[in-house]
Amino acid sequence: MKPSLQRLIQDFKAGHPRALARLITEVENRENAHEEILEALYSRVGRAHRIGITGPPGAGKSTLVDALALHFQKQGKRVGVIAVDPSSPFTGGALLGDRHRMTRATQAGIFIRSLATRGSLGGLSEATPFVADLMDAFGFDVVLIETVGVGQAELDIIHTSDTVVVVLVPESGDAIQAMKAGLMEIADIFVINKYDREGAHRFQNELESVLSMQPRREGEWTPPVIPAVATREQGVPELAEALERHLAYLKQSGRFLEKRKHRILDEIERTAKDLLWRRLEGRLSEALTQQWLQRALKGEETPYALARRIVEQLSREA
Amino acid sequence: MKPSLQRLIQDFKAGHPRALARLITEVENRENAHEEILEALYSRVGRAHRIGITGPPGAGKSTLVDALALHFQKQGKRVGVIAVDPSSPFTGGALLGDRHRMTRATQAGIFIRSLATRGSLGGLSEATPFVADLMDAFGFDVVLIETVGVGQAELDIIHTSDTVVVVLVPESGDAIQAMKAGLMEIADIFVINKYDREGAHRFQNELESVLSMQPRREGEWTPPVIPAVATREQGVPELAEALERHLAYLKQSGRFLEKRKHRILDEIERTAKDLLWRRLEGRLSEALTQQWLQRALKGEETPYALARRIVEQLSREA
Repeated sequence: MKPSLQRLIQDFKAGHPRALARLITEVENRENAHEEILEALYSRVGRAHRIGITGPPGAGKSTLVDALALHFQKQGKRVGVIAVDPSSPFTGGALLGDRHRMTRATQAGIFIRSLATRGSLGGLSEATPFVADLMDAFGFDVVLIETVGVGQAELDIIHTSDTVVVVLVPESGDAIQAMKAGLMEIADIFVINKYDREGAHRFQNELESVLSMQPRREGEWTPPVIPAVATREQGVPELAEALERHLAYLKQSGRFLEKRKHRILDEIERTAKDLLWRRLEGRLSEALTQQWLQRALKGEETPYALARRIVEQLSREA
Repeated sequence: MKPSLQRLIQDFKAGHPRALARLITEVENRENAHEEILEALYSRVGRAHRIGITGPPGAGKSTLVDALALHFQKQGKRVGVIAVDPSSPFTGGALLGDRHRMTRATQAGIFIRSLATRGSLGGLSEATPFVADLMDAFGFDVVLIETVGVGQAELDIIHTSDTVVVVLVPESGDAIQAMKAGLMEIADIFVINKYDREGAHRFQNELESVLSMQPRREGEWTPPVIPAVATREQGVPELAEALERHLAYLKQSGRFLEKRKHRILDEIERTAKDLLWRRLEGRLSEALTQQWLQRALKGEETPYALARRIVEQLSREA
């Protein structure tokens, strides 16, 4: 490990937010940096409550996260925020700077980090789980992860969070729409934001009636529906309280540990596949002689038969 | 191989379109069926001109493909059409039946197949390359592949086609927009469809001036811009002629073979990775003992270190 990185990790362990910020930058910009860095910090991971906030664009997710972060802070909790912004096609970076978003939380000294959406995780940055691990290791009690609210992105958050909050607005369309988008399956808590708008009551009734129709086992969590006007902080204490209840439910039912196990298994699988991949790629071109390729071009052998032979050969050599 | 499949392959070789249709269904519905089927037909693959037709929704791609298929047929060519439809969330199948689309080509006996978009190829069905191989092996001179025109889907077509036709309309927005979407890089031929609409000339000028600014080596292909009104068949002969020219360019420059080599290499790589994957998955759960997982949960070891150990272990055993 580079001495500069060792120094950063020391400072991180001593609780300096600037070291956290710089380690996140390392993880974002350098491939596999997370392996090296988390090696040194992994014993500290596993305590934070990871809360994913998702929902369609315009639902007011940022405002809600801002208010929620402040509320938690006032309760004496240490809070970190990950905001996943759409990639800019020009810079590959975050479109909106951290300063423009969630200004009240920023002013209150809450640690906020914007990540650009890159890589394969849909609307989440590939670095999101590692950044969440870092914030967890840093000692935050709560890590809020706000996603881009589009399509698959909304659904991917479930793999990174202990609790998923789905934010809707009265005009998001009917509950059936949310159900179709797959949001019903991933929500642990619903927030109907902008509840002062027309149709809010009707939307809440609809949503609650759809929820009541879903079969649940005894003792299973039933997602509460929380009316909110995030700009006026209405509903924010209720949301915080519901999050506490969900965390207690997760811990008592053993699901908190289960979810962590799943995240670890996902990481092991992804990393193992990656390693095998790189081994393969390095040797595929050697193994695949021009002669072999000619056989495929002449139609004497399929690419599939060639692939099988290459894998056999690699296995024998290994 | 099942006797029923052997019979289908016999009928396929004898030129029965129903056998082609049923083999496509096999390939679409049964995982790895393409390996078995193409084993028997691979010597026939490699002659067809694969033409991808892409562009934003509403550009009139289907109508253009319909007219183009008929035009080629009148010239005495054998034509196959692959239309990739959006997945239905209900059936997992194609939303629009073949009958509703490209009715004139259907009436003229042209072989048309809709594929549902499934799997990882964005807007293309995973089966698309295999179905193109089958149509190629069946003896079609031209295989037209019409994609769903959304985002990544538009760009993926380049891996499956010899020639990419990008269909735009005057109101698609400016040429800069097309450039941003990455369409400029993948287009071998541009069609401005609905050319009778306002702003068509200006759009053509814009597009051509952007094209003229791109650096090209001597002898390199310059994408022509073809005005068209597909509903009245205007521009269709010009498009067919440009496609002929591009095919001649590909063959003369050696790129036709190059593209085929790339497709074969892609298939070998994909299949080899798949094989390694399946080997890994079967043994990952064995290799990963509960004890190991406990070490990660306690923070004694990272998922990355565990993954490395598992891969080492699998390699030693292999």
